Amino acid sequence: MQYHVNGRLVEAGEATVSVEDRGFLYGDAAFETCRAYGGEVFEWDAHLTRLERTCETLGMPDAVPDDLHDRIDATLSANDLGDAYVRASVTRGVQPGKLTPADDVEPSVVIIVKPLPRGGVDGEDVWDGPADVRTVERRRVPEAAIPADAKTHNYLDGILARLELRGTGAEECLVRDVDGAVAEGATSNVFFVADGTLKTPSLAGAILPGVTRAVALELAAERGVPVETGTYDVDAVRAADEAFLTNTTWEVRPVATVDGVAVGGGPVTSALVAAFDRRVEACYGDADRS
Amino acid sequence: MQYHVNGRLVEAGEATVSVEDRGFLYGDAAFETCRAYGGEVFEWDAHLTRLERTCETLGMPDAVPDDLHDRIDATLSANDLGDAYVRASVTRGVQPGKLTPADDVEPSVVIIVKPLPRGGVDGEDVWDGPADVRTVERRRVPEAAIPADAKTHNYLDGILARLELRGTGAEECLVRDVDGAVAEGATSNVFFVADGTLKTPSLAGAILPGVTRAVALELAAERGVPVETGTYDVDAVRAADEAFLTNTTWEVRPVATVDGVAVGGGPVTSALVAAFDRRVEACYGDADRS
Repeated sequence: MQYHVNGRLVEAGEATVSVEDRGFLYGDAAFETCRAYGGEVFEWDAHLTRLERTCETLGMPDAVPDDLHDRIDATLSANDLGDAYVRASVTRGVQPGKLTPADDVEPSVVIIVKPLPRGGVDGEDVWDGPADVRTVERRRVPEAAIPADAKTHNYLDGILARLELRGTGAEECLVRDVDGAVAEGATSNVFFVADGTLKTPSLAGAILPGVTRAVALELAAERGVPVETGTYDVDAVRAADEAFLTNTTWEVRPVATVDGVAVGGGPVTSALVAAFDRRVEACYGDADRS
Repeated sequence: MQYHVNGRLVEAGEATVSVEDRGFLYGDAAFETCRAYGGEVFEWDAHLTRLERTCETLGMPDAVPDDLHDRIDATLSANDLGDAYVRASVTRGVQPGKLTPADDVEPSVVIIVKPLPRGGVDGEDVWDGPADVRTVERRRVPEAAIPADAKTHNYLDGILARLELRGTGAEECLVRDVDGAVAEGATSNVFFVADGTLKTPSLAGAILPGVTRAVALELAAERGVPVETGTYDVDAVRAADEAFLTNTTWEVRPVATVDGVAVGGGPVTSALVAAFDRRVEACYGDADRS
């Protein structure tokens, strides 16, 4: 496997950053996790927009290189990958001084890829089955401390949340905000269906605006599914008729249980899974035409 | 300059970690910043205790290598450094899978050193003069999201706070907790003197338990200075008779102004600076005896 580091393809085992890179020292970096289907990066514009916004939040608005998509293409080609997991990071690089960032940024740009096959409509999902979800004590970092729409290398709140699942068999956590409202999973957005309405926490809360979350909302609207965003407690999710999680690698993943209470998928979840599959298939369609 | 990476001394320019090291991917790492005086790591036991506690919080209680102090000594010797800045990091290393940490940890251990001369009682301070401090909007991550006593590579809240100082000329920020109480600086603890009493935010709040903070409190107690820890608003610091900041590299640094309001040092600050100098001198005394 070859990765892409600062403009060059390098063997994965030799892909490194300086121990003085601020991405290492402080998690001072933005990143995106994307999926490529048939060689095409899915929802690239949405990922690029969020990456640029994160860099702006971090005070390095020009850090994303203009040729980032080309670098990803080159990495996929070098590894002969059409269907892949892609992680692109932009760090503040090495700077003199200590914590205070210098104005002059020479970013480190790192692209990691892994094979991630997808059968599409007829194929296997990347996950083993519906997810068991558990509510954890660890809370989402509030907006006042770190803007929730920034996707950065500061991911310890999610890691500490996942550590609470050790020994429970659950695969994802339900993380609440500091006021007790449901925010999201450690790496996913949460949806549920009640009274025929699809519901998900509003971006007014401390929620990462997931790219797959936006696609799911769009697909629901296209199909005429009533949608509501708002503030919900854990009981609302436990008592839901259906629930699912979204993220780039899982796509749309049904929830089996919440805190041991069976929830499961259902007609709305199934319809969105199918609609998502068709959206992805369009990528392969484009590839066939080339 | 030579650094120490995973058991080996390497040239600084070649000191790297894998782009798949979780310390890089997620800031999934503990660290300590220490100072060596006359070749002796100041307050080593306190730093080691905090590093071990941070690793325990991160669910990797055995990650700190038994010979960490030896590795630091080797790094100082290789660079012929007696007076130095020392940064020791312990990461969760490279693991299979994504965000959820595996039980089996092969930590990455990185030691970075820089020359940091100190004249001691008669010498120059590392800072240029008393600090101008400004209150920032960015708030300290609350305990419920990430335990405040963990010193980790997730340092973005401090970086975002420092970014607010751009163009102000101030060197340190006064960061409040989400309830509005004074917490700390981005890299320092805050003390002030009012009515003859030395005051500093209590560790019950979202405060890093600074090693130099503890030394300052100890030195104040030894000198019979009345000490109070509690919850304070910014006005209390602005209206104080004296104020100072503590951290490992600054030691005890007087505050010149808070939000443009002159505060300055004073008799308590000066007495603690002098007492701290004498504490440091003891390191050189030990070295002389060897």
